[in-house]
Amino acid sequence: MSTQDKVQLPSWNEGASKASIFRFLEAVTSKGSATFVPPLDRIAVFDNDGTLWSEKPFYFQLIFALDRVKALAGQHPEWQEQQPFKAVLEGNIGGVLAGGLKALIEILLVTHAGNTSEEFEQIVLDWIASARHPTTGRPYTEMIYQPMLELLNTLQAHGFRNYIVSGGGIEFMRAWVEDVYGIPPEQVIGSSIETRFEMRDSGPVLVRLPKVDFVDDSEGKPVGIHKFIGRRPLLAFGNSDGDLEMLQWTAAGDGPHFMGLVHHTDAEREWAYDRESPVGQLDKALDEARAKGWTVVDMAREWRVVYPWETSS
Amino acid sequence: MSTQDKVQLPSWNEGASKASIFRFLEAVTSKGSATFVPPLDRIAVFDNDGTLWSEKPFYFQLIFALDRVKALAGQHPEWQEQQPFKAVLEGNIGGVLAGGLKALIEILLVTHAGNTSEEFEQIVLDWIASARHPTTGRPYTEMIYQPMLELLNTLQAHGFRNYIVSGGGIEFMRAWVEDVYGIPPEQVIGSSIETRFEMRDSGPVLVRLPKVDFVDDSEGKPVGIHKFIGRRPLLAFGNSDGDLEMLQWTAAGDGPHFMGLVHHTDAEREWAYDRESPVGQLDKALDEARAKGWTVVDMAREWRVVYPWETSS
Repeated sequence: MSTQDKVQLPSWNEGASKASIFRFLEAVTSKGSATFVPPLDRIAVFDNDGTLWSEKPFYFQLIFALDRVKALAGQHPEWQEQQPFKAVLEGNIGGVLAGGLKALIEILLVTHAGNTSEEFEQIVLDWIASARHPTTGRPYTEMIYQPMLELLNTLQAHGFRNYIVSGGGIEFMRAWVEDVYGIPPEQVIGSSIETRFEMRDSGPVLVRLPKVDFVDDSEGKPVGIHKFIGRRPLLAFGNSDGDLEMLQWTAAGDGPHFMGLVHHTDAEREWAYDRESPVGQLDKALDEARAKGWTVVDMAREWRVVYPWETSS
Repeated sequence: MSTQDKVQLPSWNEGASKASIFRFLEAVTSKGSATFVPPLDRIAVFDNDGTLWSEKPFYFQLIFALDRVKALAGQHPEWQEQQPFKAVLEGNIGGVLAGGLKALIEILLVTHAGNTSEEFEQIVLDWIASARHPTTGRPYTEMIYQPMLELLNTLQAHGFRNYIVSGGGIEFMRAWVEDVYGIPPEQVIGSSIETRFEMRDSGPVLVRLPKVDFVDDSEGKPVGIHKFIGRRPLLAFGNSDGDLEMLQWTAAGDGPHFMGLVHHTDAEREWAYDRESPVGQLDKALDEARAKGWTVVDMAREWRVVYPWETSS
């Protein structure tokens, strides 16, 4: 492997994870090798929240949904007295979370449905351009991991197609991931609500309905991968227990496969959390990764920089 | 456009349809043209049954399902007295159809579920290799349209990615379409049943459940296109009313778009049917195509050959 290739991961310190990535790439891309894989089968899948961008204090898409509740409150005077919306409008996140999964789904459906696919895309684009993270003050699209961007680029340079396989909303992600990660819409797999084709005077539209279609998390991830891609990935990267089944599904393929976890160990530059975290809990998958020799990236030790802005300062 | 490009459709007679295809290709691929479309957005979608291969006497996947009922009958002695299975085992197709959509769905679920994704793929591969069409005696994979194969190749040579968007089963098609049409699994969209991730001693599997997940027909086709691709197609080709919404969705895009219908007018070499046919009914879509100036391919007049075997004789 040439030096040119090696420098494609400049934000990774020399260490076990970087070495394992290049060892894997050499195994599957060296012509004449018994473990060579043709480019069409070079599929890489990445979780998004906590793997490609941050997920604290909680999933950024949930922050989007809470902002939407505030934006829509004028059309819903009843929300002033109705939970979980009342708690959102009072900025009482504890009250929202006290409602459990049911409250969160209610908020997600109300804020993601009731518009057309084109209208929703514009709503997301407007939000992502203007919203700022509560502690860093940065746009959310800057809170992506520079080392993972480099990994995406390195894989692409080696003939891989990178897919996102996330519990996040497929349409929420598609609005911005092509610009930010270079991943086109047809390579984004996520959770979805149902849509209905409707012919209007202005032409056909897809109306977004307040009904869950698919939950692309945990056991849903291999289901989504098989449904959308129909091939087993060669590489999978996640950061939480919600990625375990995707990693297991990838590991079960023949020949060399790469299974990786981002371990959030960096309270200084990002966040440090794993087994006890309500968002991005990493417990069972960490045990399995260690037992099976998967790559566990120690963020604090192995990443020279975390966010892109650190490289330009 | 060079002669080299023109000869890429040798099985198409000179005529309105062939001219409209090349006019469209020139508009969207000529650099510097106001209607130029970058390769990433060159998405073409094709119905399968009646558009890429034949669908008479009825959908080939239904024949597969009926054959599966016979193959599974030994494990289901109760089917000897239970409709719609009794009718299938007696070769009484009229009796099966008399049960309506409910009977067909029951047959499809029983014959497509209850195995893993890998087992089902093998079942389809075994069937497609051995089954023969009731009137031509040919393997089903030979009953594909040579002119459409050439169109797929010409589009690919012009930077298009070809997708199948079919009411047929996604996993039924994926088993063989890459070999036969050169369309990879991730570019196949179809109807599906639900699957469940399961960890077995031998490793993880996806179990196919007797529950409809998605019906990729009529209003479902734009929904499936948006879900799987997330871009509006530039070209859409179908042959029946079940393709109308896909054609409308494609037509509503900005700039030049191509909407095509295969019109089955050839009782000699293939079949002749349209407005009254229970399989592949073409009525509303034919009216709309004519009103809007979409391309309607008159199979009898515009195709020099229909099936690939005619070119080698």
